[in-house]
Amino acid sequence: MTRASSRPVRIGRYDAGEWHATGDEVAAEEPLQLLLDGEPLSVIMRTPGNDIELALGLLHAERVIISLRDVASLRISAEAHETEDKIAVRDDLLESNAVDVHLRTTAARRPRRSFLSSSACGVCGATTMDDLAHDHAPLRPGPIVDAKTLPPLADRLREQQRLFERTGGLHAAGLFSASGELITLREDIGRHNAVDKVVGRALLDGTAPISGALLAVSGRAGYEVVQKAIAAGIPILVAVGAPSTLAVATAVRFGLTLVGFMRGERFNVYSAPERVRGARLD
Amino acid sequence: MTRASSRPVRIGRYDAGEWHATGDEVAAEEPLQLLLDGEPLSVIMRTPGNDIELALGLLHAERVIISLRDVASLRISAEAHETEDKIAVRDDLLESNAVDVHLRTTAARRPRRSFLSSSACGVCGATTMDDLAHDHAPLRPGPIVDAKTLPPLADRLREQQRLFERTGGLHAAGLFSASGELITLREDIGRHNAVDKVVGRALLDGTAPISGALLAVSGRAGYEVVQKAIAAGIPILVAVGAPSTLAVATAVRFGLTLVGFMRGERFNVYSAPERVRGARLD
Repeated sequence: MTRASSRPVRIGRYDAGEWHATGDEVAAEEPLQLLLDGEPLSVIMRTPGNDIELALGLLHAERVIISLRDVASLRISAEAHETEDKIAVRDDLLESNAVDVHLRTTAARRPRRSFLSSSACGVCGATTMDDLAHDHAPLRPGPIVDAKTLPPLADRLREQQRLFERTGGLHAAGLFSASGELITLREDIGRHNAVDKVVGRALLDGTAPISGALLAVSGRAGYEVVQKAIAAGIPILVAVGAPSTLAVATAVRFGLTLVGFMRGERFNVYSAPERVRGARLD
Repeated sequence: MTRASSRPVRIGRYDAGEWHATGDEVAAEEPLQLLLDGEPLSVIMRTPGNDIELALGLLHAERVIISLRDVASLRISAEAHETEDKIAVRDDLLESNAVDVHLRTTAARRPRRSFLSSSACGVCGATTMDDLAHDHAPLRPGPIVDAKTLPPLADRLREQQRLFERTGGLHAAGLFSASGELITLREDIGRHNAVDKVVGRALLDGTAPISGALLAVSGRAGYEVVQKAIAAGIPILVAVGAPSTLAVATAVRFGLTLVGFMRGERFNVYSAPERVRGARLD
């Protein structure tokens, strides 16, 4: 990789009753704008690095290109520090986080359909967040929870899942009260879908915005899960897995309490620690 | 859930040198066509069930609707067996796997952009596969591997990852020779991106189609990962996690050997067992 695939962040680490303000590393996530012959084609949430490979691999999977011979040249920004031997690469693109692929036979293999890999729309993290800020105010103060309320949520998610799935292939999202009682659990092969189903239930029940509850998810917390929590007005997001850089930055900006890396009696708080009693980041 | 979230499949289970042809359950994955006022808006790969919640939750996250009051009515197919008290639902949609949301104020909140959640394009699994078949022939016979070659691939993926990531937030995709030697490893916050990067590397190296190698992925195997393996000509896909129904069906149709659920010396073969010495599904 040409660029760091992770970034340092400040966290509050909870371990069986003890709090430590410390540093940690989170996986880098930034939107990549993919252009085809200078025209915007798709935005991909990805870890920076090997962007040329990513662009070519995606265009190949979508049958826009069949081989490298279909590519006349490629443009990327200088700060990406990427070049390749077998293909003409110019590093004069002004935008960062963008790749522009120029085809040899322009008429030949236009994509038959739009293929956005993500619902993100910005070209860089800041734009993505600005766009979100256009629609959403920072979250309301919301509840303050005890640290010991949180670790059992991951177990409850797993227990509930065990009841009606034997496949190991489903993600779960659970909405819990501030005292840890389960309100809604939904499962789906897509973790974003499980969150959408939980929020859709609250809309149908007339309980949205969900300003008094916690959302727990079985997987990682990327930008999109954080965005969905903010859109639903949920003040505390608990992920069993790790968050990304853009997830943390977005949570900080909107005042979402982001909790992640649940392992037994341990977890990390990445943002807005004031909603978890005793937590601080520094 | 109104519909089964998993389906039975036949598998070949390998456990420390022993083979068992047996049955298993895999998570259901099918595309949902989301329509807005009768116009196709997006296709979402999801586990069937709670489709009304999913449609409303997604439209809310994308700010197409702010509350249930923005929705005039909703149409869904009768076979979905879904209804709701608080909203007018008609179950007269002819297509299965579709939801049509009609807004009260049609001009008010048109989505500012297209938001496909997935690169899948069909309305049902069969259409998705037909579309894929339009572009790709069944895979060539390719290599035959020893069962004991496979379990170490998951460990190698993890070992390589440990070297340069401390975040727990990255997925890995590794291309291996038929004898288990690592050719390319790529990491990304998105597991589809990690696969695209591996294939992009092969395109740049002039080694695509990758008909003699194995692809191993750290996560689950959904439809899109299988589709990308087929597009790249890769005959054997090894997933540490579980596959979906649509992943298995697609692998069967294209003759891709799909291996999943790697746990120590155990794994399952879901399709095209002839490429793994000793494997059979029945």
